[in-house]
Amino acid sequence: MKNIVTLIAIVVLISFLASAQSSSQLNLMPMPASVQQGSGQLPIMQSFSVEVTGTRDPSLDAAVQRFTKQLSAQTGIPFRPKAGSAATLTVHADHGLEPVQKLGEDESYQLTVTDSGAQLTAPTALGALHGLETFLQLVTITPNGFAAPAVTIKDQPRFQWRGTLIDVSRHFIPIDVLKRNLDGMAAVKMNVLHWHLSDDQGFRAESKVFPKLTGMGSDGMFYTQGEIRDLIAYAHDRGIRVLPEFDMPGHSRSWLIGYPELASGPGPFTLEQGDPILDPTREETYKFLEKFIAEMAKLFPDAYFHIGGDEVDGKQWDSNPKIQEFIHAHGMKNNQDLQAYFNQRLEKIVAKNHKIMVGWDEILHPDLPKTIVVQSWRGQESLALAAQKGYRGLLSYGYYLDLMWPTARHYAVDPMSGAAANLTPEQKALILGGESCQWAEWVTPENVDSHIWPRNAAIAERLWSPQDVTDVNSMYTRMQAVSLELEWLGLIHNGAREGMLHRMAGTADISSLRVLADVVEPVKDYNRWSDEKGPINFHAPLNQLIDAAYPESDTARAFGALVQQFVQSGFKDQAAEAQIRTWLMLWRNNDAKLHPLLQQSSLLQEDTPISQNLAMLGAAGLQALDYLDKGLPEPDLWKTQQLAVIEQSKKPVAGLLLQVTAPVQQLVEANASSGH
Amino acid sequence: MKNIVTLIAIVVLISFLASAQSSSQLNLMPMPASVQQGSGQLPIMQSFSVEVTGTRDPSLDAAVQRFTKQLSAQTGIPFRPKAGSAATLTVHADHGLEPVQKLGEDESYQLTVTDSGAQLTAPTALGALHGLETFLQLVTITPNGFAAPAVTIKDQPRFQWRGTLIDVSRHFIPIDVLKRNLDGMAAVKMNVLHWHLSDDQGFRAESKVFPKLTGMGSDGMFYTQGEIRDLIAYAHDRGIRVLPEFDMPGHSRSWLIGYPELASGPGPFTLEQGDPILDPTREETYKFLEKFIAEMAKLFPDAYFHIGGDEVDGKQWDSNPKIQEFIHAHGMKNNQDLQAYFNQRLEKIVAKNHKIMVGWDEILHPDLPKTIVVQSWRGQESLALAAQKGYRGLLSYGYYLDLMWPTARHYAVDPMSGAAANLTPEQKALILGGESCQWAEWVTPENVDSHIWPRNAAIAERLWSPQDVTDVNSMYTRMQAVSLELEWLGLIHNGAREGMLHRMAGTADISSLRVLADVVEPVKDYNRWSDEKGPINFHAPLNQLIDAAYPESDTARAFGALVQQFVQSGFKDQAAEAQIRTWLMLWRNNDAKLHPLLQQSSLLQEDTPISQNLAMLGAAGLQALDYLDKGLPEPDLWKTQQLAVIEQSKKPVAGLLLQVTAPVQQLVEANASSGH
Repeated sequence: MKNIVTLIAIVVLISFLASAQSSSQLNLMPMPASVQQGSGQLPIMQSFSVEVTGTRDPSLDAAVQRFTKQLSAQTGIPFRPKAGSAATLTVHADHGLEPVQKLGEDESYQLTVTDSGAQLTAPTALGALHGLETFLQLVTITPNGFAAPAVTIKDQPRFQWRGTLIDVSRHFIPIDVLKRNLDGMAAVKMNVLHWHLSDDQGFRAESKVFPKLTGMGSDGMFYTQGEIRDLIAYAHDRGIRVLPEFDMPGHSRSWLIGYPELASGPGPFTLEQGDPILDPTREETYKFLEKFIAEMAKLFPDAYFHIGGDEVDGKQWDSNPKIQEFIHAHGMKNNQDLQAYFNQRLEKIVAKNHKIMVGWDEILHPDLPKTIVVQSWRGQESLALAAQKGYRGLLSYGYYLDLMWPTARHYAVDPMSGAAANLTPEQKALILGGESCQWAEWVTPENVDSHIWPRNAAIAERLWSPQDVTDVNSMYTRMQAVSLELEWLGLIHNGAREGMLHRMAGTADISSLRVLADVVEPVKDYNRWSDEKGPINFHAPLNQLIDAAYPESDTARAFGALVQQFVQSGFKDQAAEAQIRTWLMLWRNNDAKLHPLLQQSSLLQEDTPISQNLAMLGAAGLQALDYLDKGLPEPDLWKTQQLAVIEQSKKPVAGLLLQVTAPVQQLVEANASSGH
Repeated sequence: MKNIVTLIAIVVLISFLASAQSSSQLNLMPMPASVQQGSGQLPIMQSFSVEVTGTRDPSLDAAVQRFTKQLSAQTGIPFRPKAGSAATLTVHADHGLEPVQKLGEDESYQLTVTDSGAQLTAPTALGALHGLETFLQLVTITPNGFAAPAVTIKDQPRFQWRGTLIDVSRHFIPIDVLKRNLDGMAAVKMNVLHWHLSDDQGFRAESKVFPKLTGMGSDGMFYTQGEIRDLIAYAHDRGIRVLPEFDMPGHSRSWLIGYPELASGPGPFTLEQGDPILDPTREETYKFLEKFIAEMAKLFPDAYFHIGGDEVDGKQWDSNPKIQEFIHAHGMKNNQDLQAYFNQRLEKIVAKNHKIMVGWDEILHPDLPKTIVVQSWRGQESLALAAQKGYRGLLSYGYYLDLMWPTARHYAVDPMSGAAANLTPEQKALILGGESCQWAEWVTPENVDSHIWPRNAAIAERLWSPQDVTDVNSMYTRMQAVSLELEWLGLIHNGAREGMLHRMAGTADISSLRVLADVVEPVKDYNRWSDEKGPINFHAPLNQLIDAAYPESDTARAFGALVQQFVQSGFKDQAAEAQIRTWLMLWRNNDAKLHPLLQQSSLLQEDTPISQNLAMLGAAGLQALDYLDKGLPEPDLWKTQQLAVIEQSKKPVAGLLLQVTAPVQQLVEANASSGH
């Protein structure tokens, strides 16, 4: 018995959500433009029912059905409305959804909840969809059952374009995964799915005109036109436009496997290697694009069409004498001019198909018409620059979810801040909104949700809510609430990690592994790339701790705040200190339990040093507290040793950062500053 | 800061799985008939591939695809077989699946794994399906990657009928939930889904001949014939027969809403109340059943057809003078004779449709032909009795999952034990196997998996593995492993609880609620029924702690074993004592953190006393240990008080049992026996 009974770990959890939501702040995200709280609450009982008055719209009816199903899931109540009774919630929209949603439609709504019922009214069904999402967030458990508080909400978005880009090229993302992410986007009132359908590593949209695009350029994983229509209808039902992107002339290797004659250099090419790009000097290229864009323009009903245009690597242009000849013959100065020439011709094709061209920063060129939209990934300056030149723009710089930034950092980025703050009102009006971006180098269907959510909800708030909604603590509190709601929608951003940890550990008890996973984050920015030896293998398994770790550690954030509180109390807050000690003891003792688990798994062995670092940090923090408590100065040698441990703990291990290092350093260094 | 930062709970987890699986026992469930371990292991790498040799069968091909997908999910490896390389696993079946699976088909297989490859051979595709499931269970993470150990397995089932009954009448279970449960059944080599399609509370199978059966008798929740055919095909692909049950003449209220003329008493009836049963004295009843059974016999291809026949409440027969007159006129003695008359006529209809009749114990009657099968729910005696009389039988007594028994109790029930042990070999041969039963009074699509799994895996083992496979510790260890596998298949028996707890608590941090949930179990047997005031409301929400609690508490089992170990060491095992103290401290401190959470939720308020009891048990256990450690006798008054606490803790609260009470009582009572 003794041999098999092992105490594996003590898991300590601190929460910023311990108390029920205060009456002064509802757990709404994005925060509505205006919230006026009343008194009392509307009970959500088994007799709950919804009545749609005003215009009838199949999408709105479907939304009400989804709403009821979701509310039933969130409450666990199988609703059984009583025939003949007044509806609990009435929904009134003056107008139905447009067959194809347009940029700039009225998305406003008004939601009034009293203790006897709720009314949702909106000029359009689009606004009504948003109001239903708000109602779902209002309902909470109370001592008297589930209820929505009495409230009057008047709401409309700050920006008309609030999108999420999902790259499906580098790793294919199946339709059902996209659908659950559309559900999540709708829950936080986002209205554009930017579908990055082609890139070097895979062409994902079926073309019947050019079947080799997916036939040779996709490894068999792509969306049929039927699936694409289905996804667009799914998005439309949720008030979400679908913006297709076909990246050109760069990022286009996948096009050229099947059609090497369009390339600027000699083929053949494979999906795995080479940097071929389109040849803008040959008429065949435009003949191809005429047909291709005509086909895609019919398939995708949205008025906007994204042609990429970013990061054109001109090596193939440089080394092709005919292209160089073309550049000189046309009086161009460089490759940028050649790309501008390409974009002008491309824009005419796009416009001929009644679409408005969207592209990344690099397409900005005075010869392009003012109708185009520039999406800024390089910085807020380029967004402002475009606006100054009269172009409409979208901000994505600062919203790259794949960079693994903490939510607060994304949240602080405002499309109207930075260089944009100095624009004239007319110029500011050209900034349509923004898009978060989920580039897919390091995701699978299993972990992509956790790379997008819940952080994306905070970006959604930035784009919807008034500019002065900026309180970070409030944001985190509300994001935790919306995160639970998103799980009820079917997203697996929280839930998938457990299975991944079980897989790595190979055992039923993973509590000590969870302790480690809770305090690490993947390395930031493009540092994971630089750890790779040679080009990224996009077919490699993504089944290690770095793939399961959440981009932001709630535990580390909570622990950092706790240490901050303790320091600010002049090291006198005993309750905080007791909590800090509990954490530190947990970490100090964890490695002894985790070590055998790490050793028995090829997937976890590389994490051995970070588990040891965590144990040393725990010990260092506890000793630092002991010195503080006893009022003794820390011995110099001890302090030097501990700071060495801390420096070592700052270095990534297996692509992971130990995010409790800085607060422990604060404790170790506190001794001097505390006056002892 | 101080106000919102709250340390909610310390979660301590003990595991019986701490060390990797020992080489002497593989985590297989059900345990194969013969396992011979070799040396070395077969690495599962990205190049892993399967080749099917021998007979080609679409179901086997589909199974290999599912197998590969599941192995990919379990390992996180996207397989990319190398063209031209030898397959890692070859699968050879001599014969394909029968179009309709037959009772008693050869299900054997042989699986040989060496360090260079694996061969699976079987006389039938059915055996090959089972072998694929075994291979999935062999693969584990090792220090050198995922691998299957070298082994030679020769396997076949002990019983030919290994089923699970799922009641879909009392609570409707959607098709997708049934499908994931079929996946689970296939994983543990069960081969019969007994589909309890009608009962008082709902008629769930569409009849085109008698549309009012579901039209009025189902509240709109039923399976169309298309869905039924789809489910049967899904089951067939997994080697699972589908046995339909239409319960009659009792348990038949739902039939009689639309067809009150078939009832023994005056209608009309509603789904909610009354105990109407079929009238066996009128020819109209048999005319109805002729048509109905003809329709259903075509819809369900299996050779067997279950007519229920249990718990006929004769009140309506007693109070109907015409029925009493019929009984006397035909020389019958009582209602049992009338039911026997009904069953004889019914059997002829069933046989005319080329089906073999199956029914519960009560149908046993010498006038019925020996072809019928009797399913015993009342006890092993009635199974033996049926066999003595020459009838084939199935055991379900002892396998009722809805009674919330611990797994070990089900596991100890053997179809050949009890009265059956004394049967002759010929009589024993009549015992075909058994079925677990999931009656649906207290389940929803959300928690039904947790009521079935993982306990059902142990029943599956009882019906598949050799009779001498009875080690309970081994069973629990292997069941924990298979439980993880089942989650990869899509079952939510572990995963759903988290969301349910979040729903009740209404907060992101539920760690203190988890501590309580981990040590409680729903009341056993039919005690939940007796807590109901009046008839059960089958439409009520099932969203309270009793609905989320697992039927068996792993924590309580582990703690009980730990205390046992400590007691058996003569109270000298200090490591065990330290672990016991950690648990007890956790529980003693938990209520202070949990109490505010319970108070703010109408769903949790009723659990307040059990949380307090847990705290008191924690304190009592700690004090008892202190007395033991100090070698002091426990004061009589103290002991009397603690035993009062223990008695109080034994009483169910809100339908929940506090399952750590008995081991704490052992500690409190240890003081006397320890010789102090």
